[in-house]
Amino acid sequence: MSLDSLFCPSSVAVIGASRESGKVGNTILNNIINSKFEGRIFPINPKTDIIHGLKCYNSILEVAQDIDLAVIVIPGKHVLSVLDECYQKKVGAAIIISAGFKEVGKEGAKLEMKLVKKAKEYGIRILGPNCLGMINTSQPIDASFSPTLPMPGNISFISQSGALGTSVLDWAKYANMGISKFVSLGNKADISENDCIAYLKDDDSCNVITAYLEGVKDGREFINICSEVSKHKPIIVVKAGNTSAGAKAVSSHTGTLAGSGAAYNASFKQSGIIRAHTIKNLFDYANTFANQPLPKGKKVAIITNAGGPGIMATDACELSGISLAALDTETIDRLKEFLPAAANFYNPIDVLGDAGADRYQKTVETVLGDQNVDAVIVILTPQAVTQPYKTAQAIVEELKDCTEKVPMIGCFMGGASVQKGIQYLRDKGIPNYDIPESAVEALKVMIEYNLWKNRQSQPPKKFKADKKKVRKLFDRRIKEERYNLGEIEARKVLKAYDIAIPQAKLAKDVDEAVNIAQNIGYPVVLKIVSPTILHKTDVGGIKVGIESKEELVEEFEQMLWDVKRYMPDANIKGILIQEMVELKKETIIGINNDPQFGPMIMFGLGGIYVEVLKDVSFRIAPITREDAQEMINEIKAVQLLKGSRGEQPSDIESIIDVLLKISQMVIDFPEIIEMDINPLFVKTEGKGAIAGDVRIRLGEN
Amino acid sequence: MSLDSLFCPSSVAVIGASRESGKVGNTILNNIINSKFEGRIFPINPKTDIIHGLKCYNSILEVAQDIDLAVIVIPGKHVLSVLDECYQKKVGAAIIISAGFKEVGKEGAKLEMKLVKKAKEYGIRILGPNCLGMINTSQPIDASFSPTLPMPGNISFISQSGALGTSVLDWAKYANMGISKFVSLGNKADISENDCIAYLKDDDSCNVITAYLEGVKDGREFINICSEVSKHKPIIVVKAGNTSAGAKAVSSHTGTLAGSGAAYNASFKQSGIIRAHTIKNLFDYANTFANQPLPKGKKVAIITNAGGPGIMATDACELSGISLAALDTETIDRLKEFLPAAANFYNPIDVLGDAGADRYQKTVETVLGDQNVDAVIVILTPQAVTQPYKTAQAIVEELKDCTEKVPMIGCFMGGASVQKGIQYLRDKGIPNYDIPESAVEALKVMIEYNLWKNRQSQPPKKFKADKKKVRKLFDRRIKEERYNLGEIEARKVLKAYDIAIPQAKLAKDVDEAVNIAQNIGYPVVLKIVSPTILHKTDVGGIKVGIESKEELVEEFEQMLWDVKRYMPDANIKGILIQEMVELKKETIIGINNDPQFGPMIMFGLGGIYVEVLKDVSFRIAPITREDAQEMINEIKAVQLLKGSRGEQPSDIESIIDVLLKISQMVIDFPEIIEMDINPLFVKTEGKGAIAGDVRIRLGEN
Repeated sequence: MSLDSLFCPSSVAVIGASRESGKVGNTILNNIINSKFEGRIFPINPKTDIIHGLKCYNSILEVAQDIDLAVIVIPGKHVLSVLDECYQKKVGAAIIISAGFKEVGKEGAKLEMKLVKKAKEYGIRILGPNCLGMINTSQPIDASFSPTLPMPGNISFISQSGALGTSVLDWAKYANMGISKFVSLGNKADISENDCIAYLKDDDSCNVITAYLEGVKDGREFINICSEVSKHKPIIVVKAGNTSAGAKAVSSHTGTLAGSGAAYNASFKQSGIIRAHTIKNLFDYANTFANQPLPKGKKVAIITNAGGPGIMATDACELSGISLAALDTETIDRLKEFLPAAANFYNPIDVLGDAGADRYQKTVETVLGDQNVDAVIVILTPQAVTQPYKTAQAIVEELKDCTEKVPMIGCFMGGASVQKGIQYLRDKGIPNYDIPESAVEALKVMIEYNLWKNRQSQPPKKFKADKKKVRKLFDRRIKEERYNLGEIEARKVLKAYDIAIPQAKLAKDVDEAVNIAQNIGYPVVLKIVSPTILHKTDVGGIKVGIESKEELVEEFEQMLWDVKRYMPDANIKGILIQEMVELKKETIIGINNDPQFGPMIMFGLGGIYVEVLKDVSFRIAPITREDAQEMINEIKAVQLLKGSRGEQPSDIESIIDVLLKISQMVIDFPEIIEMDINPLFVKTEGKGAIAGDVRIRLGEN
Repeated sequence: MSLDSLFCPSSVAVIGASRESGKVGNTILNNIINSKFEGRIFPINPKTDIIHGLKCYNSILEVAQDIDLAVIVIPGKHVLSVLDECYQKKVGAAIIISAGFKEVGKEGAKLEMKLVKKAKEYGIRILGPNCLGMINTSQPIDASFSPTLPMPGNISFISQSGALGTSVLDWAKYANMGISKFVSLGNKADISENDCIAYLKDDDSCNVITAYLEGVKDGREFINICSEVSKHKPIIVVKAGNTSAGAKAVSSHTGTLAGSGAAYNASFKQSGIIRAHTIKNLFDYANTFANQPLPKGKKVAIITNAGGPGIMATDACELSGISLAALDTETIDRLKEFLPAAANFYNPIDVLGDAGADRYQKTVETVLGDQNVDAVIVILTPQAVTQPYKTAQAIVEELKDCTEKVPMIGCFMGGASVQKGIQYLRDKGIPNYDIPESAVEALKVMIEYNLWKNRQSQPPKKFKADKKKVRKLFDRRIKEERYNLGEIEARKVLKAYDIAIPQAKLAKDVDEAVNIAQNIGYPVVLKIVSPTILHKTDVGGIKVGIESKEELVEEFEQMLWDVKRYMPDANIKGILIQEMVELKKETIIGINNDPQFGPMIMFGLGGIYVEVLKDVSFRIAPITREDAQEMINEIKAVQLLKGSRGEQPSDIESIIDVLLKISQMVIDFPEIIEMDINPLFVKTEGKGAIAGDVRIRLGEN
């Protein structure tokens, strides 16, 4: 169901409207009226006849016409019965301001569940409960009890915190920033961030979607929606709150390393969401996106009237991977025509401390004419003859005439003397930042978003897999309530997805072992096989590099002895004799089930890289080939795979394949809740990758 | 010489004073008069009789009395002769505003050198040339051509960029931030950041020293002065500009890794300097230091009227290593007495959206009474009944009555509706930040500074060393112009400083090799010895783990063959037979000579940790024991030394000893411009460390 009834109603009822100033039911009615809402407004309150000059009804049922939107402000316990009436009046959406639901404990949660059920039945979309309401400046309607009505604009803000919402609206007005839609999500009983983001995709009055979230309601859907919407307009999110849900006892590496924020980080990366770390950053970014075109490349020209800030901007560019545009000789020649001899004609262009508006204007004009320039930052410090206001006008003037759209960012630094200039820039859609570093950061975010927008992402290729075999295997294990798959069975699962595993065979006794090793060829690896032993190394259950029959015989007996000493009751099935993979790098691929997002894939280099340096990357399944490539490039030790210190590069393509196969596997079989391929041996380029050891844990339902 | 004549003159002459409005010589005279300077002012200009009602002199020589401070605004080429006159009038300091010196090229640089020479001879201190001037609000005197006179305050700002200075003064006034002294350094011909920082140490009108620097004049002195001054008052620095001086061709690991910013980073850490990354951070921090006491510990209480911002603050604390104070049960009981039942009584304390000033006041009072609280952050979002101004008053009221000094930081979030409250807080010395993250960051910086202030740093213990032997060795090599010390000689240097090296002896032929290995005991290491071979590994010149006589014989011949094949012209002295150190970790200690700071020491773990992960730390020599300890703790892989995965911890104390010995060595012998101890083998705790291989390069003069 569309959210049109919520965002663009033609009529609205305020159930619980009040005459008493200061009451929420009064404020909301006031806000709707003052927002110049053009549809019919129906205050509902059995105790009053007229509020703010509007006829007041005893019940929504008394209203003659059907109603689009109901804003409900009555105590929580009465909400259910009112919803019945709403149904009769064909209400499409209800904003439930009332508290007393999930947020107050068990009883409230029950009430909320009943509410959701009823709303679904009736086909009424619910915003809230326990929320501040909704504002749509393009309708216009302010169906919230926010003390501030924002200016119209093209930035939408979705807030999981009502109080933060009031702060932001207050601040946006103060900063002259326009808002398209404001939504306070409250308890998210029905309408969530996902619904709002999806709705805003096709909303022409909104260019930029911003949100403050403490969590998401449906992780998989969140990724699907955002990765679609972010191709059309930027989504900027502040995510607060470290979920401790992920912190429950875990036995896998992946689980331990995933920690609290990993799944959110991964999902944001996969969906093209721009993560802001503070509300201030959120709006700094939003402001730039809302008003400026995207840069077509990453080459910036910096114009400044002071050396120091020019250096600051240059430093910030270097840190952010933004290049200073190399200007055409023609551009430099033209600059030399009018800039004083002491000026710097190369980027950053220093127009000198005595530059007036005219000098700035000519410089901007010249620089905009250079094909090598993808974006311009204009820095101004107030010196004796500086003309901040006129300079602002001059910049705007030049941009007007410019056919090629190049983003322009201001950095007028100072206090009272530059405020008028800054205001002029803002009014004309040019964002201004206090300090060069913030200007560069905003530009960086734009460049990254542009890369995302232009990224080719095809759905990943489907690998052939013997799903039936795995289905059968899992079904049996689940039936037997044996959820931890031992190596032999786990290897079968990998094999079914065509992931290479070393040659190996189970030996029940030492003679069998000698025969198997003979066939495989030395050197071999010995591994204890027992359903009761999860961590083989800890009990002396792994021995690598067995070079000869003599060594094999000795180590076989030793292993049995060691394991029995550590775990006298272990149910030992035998010892696996396995091919030893040589000339390889050890990597790890893991799966951990995130409560919000489902199966999350981890990649890292083996051993201390994972355990001590925690140098790993995460993505939510399913992943694309680009995601897999990024996962590998993201780890700091990637250079070891690419070939460092004269070594041959490793077969990175084969890692990508395994990552994609695992991604496909965990989507096919959601019952896989943990998996560690540790190590995944990666041979040199073109030689493939082999899963050295694997553990799989299935969920209990 | 003290800078009193500069900062607190009793008389001032403006040489080049002008009647013409807009001219620098006019603005400065104006500024001195308008700043209510109480001493005598003498405008000097042969072409005018009276300026601003003051008698104007043809020359400073015509002034009857002696003069403290001369502000020189005449063209650069006339400055020298004017300085002669200044000498006759016993001028103590001169601010040279004039440009035309080092900044314009060779000729200017020559002029500047003459100026410095003359000034030294005359005992006149010089600020500039090519600077904006100086302001001291506590004198008061504004001897600058800044368009803005700041409010008096206790923060001093030293700027290497004049233009940035004008921006900052403009902004400080706009933000109502008081300034004690403002200094524009200009070309730093004489007076540098070092002089100013040293002077400000005993200046009671200044609590916080801030600076914008693009470089320092004398690195060693900078560290000495700042580490002394920062024990008395915080020094906050923005350092801009990546020096490319360090980028010249280097052959050592240390040099390559040091890059541009490493020396500055190291020097700041060693001197207790608080590094701000932007001018905004600089003043955010300064504001808090200037007005609030230092927290005695790192436990903060957060009071908020909204959940979201409370979570943001909590997240930020977690990221910054700040703890949320665990409140006394008594405190919680008291909170329960007056807070509504739905409030959160545990930290972060949520006083709920309907909290008025009274509820905030009681909460602040209660929290301040809890011994577990080292600092308080008060968050306020403007909701229906919120009273920002009254709440600000209430907070100030509570702080007044508080005997234990606890820092209080405001985070009133919003626009117009909270401005009056914020202004009240600021007027009363309580800083306010727009967002919780900034409040937490400011607190974090205070906590770190407090740790620095309380850090015990004794001068490092002197190790016994055979300096004579090293002196003789170096003198010979320098005389022979053979600057790269081979392993045998470099080992002698280490030995002279009592750094353990493996047993080893040079073998000229294979029979000698067999005898030596017999004495040392297998396994041994073979290393080619040749003055022409710098990187032994590259030519097959190192072989480890030789287990037997047979292997030795084979590898000895092979190595000679390999090396001759790669480098047919190499001058081979023989092969070193060396004890093989077992059960150890490989680390690296390096020395690189920084052009600003002199010898810089690097520490890291060997192999890929240094080469691929670049996981290293730096300090400038000489270092203290605490510095050495910090260097080790700073690397990400430190856990490998402390003992991970069931391994025994390494002998970290012995690494500290070697670092201190190397520090002492490079101070004793500044001719050492590069050194790599690679690897330094570190055995398990108590077993010591052994320098496996070492290279030393001496400077050519």
